[in-house]
Amino acid sequence: MTSDSKILLSESEMPRNWYNLVPDLPSPPPPVLHPGTLQPVGPDDLAPLFPMALIEQEVTTERYVPIPEEVLDVYRLWRPSPLYRAHRLEKALGTPAKIYYKYEGVSPAGSHKPNTAVPQAFYNAAAGIRRLTTETGAGQWGTALAFAGAQYGLDVEIWQVRASYDQKPYRKIMIETFGGTIHPSPSNLTDAGRKILAEHPDSPGSLGIAISEAVEVAAQHADTNYALGSVLNHVLLHQTIIGEEALLQLAKVGATPDVIVGCTGGGSNFGGLAFPFLREKLAGTMNPTIRAVEPASCPSLTKGVYAYDFGDTAGMTPLMKMHTLGHDFIPDPIHAGGLRYHGMSPLISHVYELGLMEAVAKTQKECFEAGVTFARTEGIIPAPEPTHALAACIEEALRCKETGEEKVILTALCGHGHLDLPAYGRFLAGDMEDHALSEEAVATAIAGLPRV
Amino acid sequence: MTSDSKILLSESEMPRNWYNLVPDLPSPPPPVLHPGTLQPVGPDDLAPLFPMALIEQEVTTERYVPIPEEVLDVYRLWRPSPLYRAHRLEKALGTPAKIYYKYEGVSPAGSHKPNTAVPQAFYNAAAGIRRLTTETGAGQWGTALAFAGAQYGLDVEIWQVRASYDQKPYRKIMIETFGGTIHPSPSNLTDAGRKILAEHPDSPGSLGIAISEAVEVAAQHADTNYALGSVLNHVLLHQTIIGEEALLQLAKVGATPDVIVGCTGGGSNFGGLAFPFLREKLAGTMNPTIRAVEPASCPSLTKGVYAYDFGDTAGMTPLMKMHTLGHDFIPDPIHAGGLRYHGMSPLISHVYELGLMEAVAKTQKECFEAGVTFARTEGIIPAPEPTHALAACIEEALRCKETGEEKVILTALCGHGHLDLPAYGRFLAGDMEDHALSEEAVATAIAGLPRV
Repeated sequence: MTSDSKILLSESEMPRNWYNLVPDLPSPPPPVLHPGTLQPVGPDDLAPLFPMALIEQEVTTERYVPIPEEVLDVYRLWRPSPLYRAHRLEKALGTPAKIYYKYEGVSPAGSHKPNTAVPQAFYNAAAGIRRLTTETGAGQWGTALAFAGAQYGLDVEIWQVRASYDQKPYRKIMIETFGGTIHPSPSNLTDAGRKILAEHPDSPGSLGIAISEAVEVAAQHADTNYALGSVLNHVLLHQTIIGEEALLQLAKVGATPDVIVGCTGGGSNFGGLAFPFLREKLAGTMNPTIRAVEPASCPSLTKGVYAYDFGDTAGMTPLMKMHTLGHDFIPDPIHAGGLRYHGMSPLISHVYELGLMEAVAKTQKECFEAGVTFARTEGIIPAPEPTHALAACIEEALRCKETGEEKVILTALCGHGHLDLPAYGRFLAGDMEDHALSEEAVATAIAGLPRV
Repeated sequence: MTSDSKILLSESEMPRNWYNLVPDLPSPPPPVLHPGTLQPVGPDDLAPLFPMALIEQEVTTERYVPIPEEVLDVYRLWRPSPLYRAHRLEKALGTPAKIYYKYEGVSPAGSHKPNTAVPQAFYNAAAGIRRLTTETGAGQWGTALAFAGAQYGLDVEIWQVRASYDQKPYRKIMIETFGGTIHPSPSNLTDAGRKILAEHPDSPGSLGIAISEAVEVAAQHADTNYALGSVLNHVLLHQTIIGEEALLQLAKVGATPDVIVGCTGGGSNFGGLAFPFLREKLAGTMNPTIRAVEPASCPSLTKGVYAYDFGDTAGMTPLMKMHTLGHDFIPDPIHAGGLRYHGMSPLISHVYELGLMEAVAKTQKECFEAGVTFARTEGIIPAPEPTHALAACIEEALRCKETGEEKVILTALCGHGHLDLPAYGRFLAGDMEDHALSEEAVATAIAGLPRV
């Protein structure tokens, strides 16, 4: 008799607080700077785009932030999310390791993104905002915000990178089903978009352009705010519910993780899982190795520099100290669209600099191979992003097979791949390329960093 | 404080038996007949296509059939499935009714189909079979069997109706990701397929042709069997785990259903949910109204005749007494592909004749409207098939709003609609037609029934 495949929490066991790592760190992360004055930004600098509750969460030094009842009510639609023991994957690998995965694909958008979209929509609605704007690449974040907006009566307007908008029509329909409005970017609805279109009528767009359009509209209307789906402290804060639940779930089966692996793009999924365990590590109650897995085509942690840089391509945001490949770096078009970001969350970058975690990079074919193995054994087709974590997870499990170690491995399966099946089709047909950034390309990319 | 949104069972609470309704009925269903002799078929007639364990389950008079441990092991990947209380939908409708939905979209295929695909694959593997063939329309059944085959080392070969194969590439990729082989039908791999292609090189195919191809290959190879995803008694038997779990879950919250609604195509999802409750109704422990919802374009229960007919278009199967629109009836191309079947499960047809359940028909725009309402409130985009049940569920809840009755409504949300988003796109764009079968069309369709 094997132990259960699923470790579940009741709704009454759902955590009532998000966890803020900052006060537990040996030193605080460097401040965010105003690009004009190079002085730390204040609440007033951010007020045109964000409600004060989120600005306060961005800089809070409280260890715990209570989750509002109105947010818990929506979380209950899919939270607590299940933690799975991957019995059938372990058996297929022949490993003595115990593999656990926390599955966020049960959410309305199919990923972890609603964990922050819901509170962001709530705080904006509570502040009297009527509309949210945002950008989306592959579409997970746009879907999450469209759903979240519908829960609090907010209109949600999304600029999606034109290339993705054309290639992934299912995401657009999902967003519209949840009641969101979606535009391809560049659009003729904004100055930023019109300027690009005038010069490049067939522009495929970029995340940077889409951000510019969404921010422009939010800045121009008093009833409209902007929402961001990763990178910022308050986003990672909201995602810590993943790790808090996983802690409770592992405790139920008496397991303590030896290795925690998660994929990193902007960092919110990884931080969400890892930070509560990092609290325990800092407190000395456990000592897991915490490992970020990034794409070799966009290796901000493993090959980028730790420096002040802009969050967007156009250079409109404040300057953040982070591991970056340069804000105008355009990653190769790998299928894990959610990992194609030039920088890393400043908080995760700081944790990395403190030596509290490690990072590895993977090329995509190894990741899709892991995704197929996972699908055939565990029955869930992973999104391309978490296949990076699964590849590292399988690598660790196979190491355990050699050494005989019965390590407990915990990973974040942050989303399903139902809308990413064409990428699997290409992999299965042998029609997929690997991309890895050369040292020369890294040097070129970071040459344009702002001098701070 | 509202009650929980999710009512969960632990794996140790998972039912250990499937339930067979037949011995509890006041009379047994009429026998299945050999089309040549018009005598009841015996095990030998079915042995070229099915393993003896399934043939025995097809005719068993035992009330309970134990679920093998090897099947429970795979079920545990997603079972017990959650039962949800639709708090946010109730609130949006302003109804005093309590709506519960049993969600089968958490399975590997995204629907209830793996509940029978897994035991079918298991019994075939146990009988020494190496390969399974089947047909699939929209693709849910093919996906389920591909996944199930992978669990027991069986090759799975699937003939998909050409039109669906071309229109729904995501399903093909999902099947291949799980390790299945898929061919568009008609194919040049079988006599049946070659014959059609010779006459109609551009044939879009049909479920009937695909069945003929799959059956032909299975009949010709000793190591190959055929598998069917609905209609037959053993398929409905396996699906009763849905209703058995739902009974336990409702008991946990002290709720007794007043109305049970489910969509019907071949009938396995509906029977799976309803039969355990029908057992209770026959025993007098509860008295729910049990309501089938079928598409107005394919109304076998509400407009068909109760007569002996073939299960497939080509007339190769035994004759089954069922509600049918005639085996050569081709339903209009509604988006709920899983409900486009000319007949109804003989067991459900018999239950309907006994007056133990009722049936209604819905056109698809009302159903998609219900699907969008559900998605925006509950966060799950339903497959087109269960939107039929949801439309009837919402209708009942709004009736309760008028009368003030606090009825308990239970429905089966048998799958998610992630791979059906183009249909939502058409609905949201106002580009969807309603189809309802006229009396004249019914009369024409049933004119060709075999004379038995």
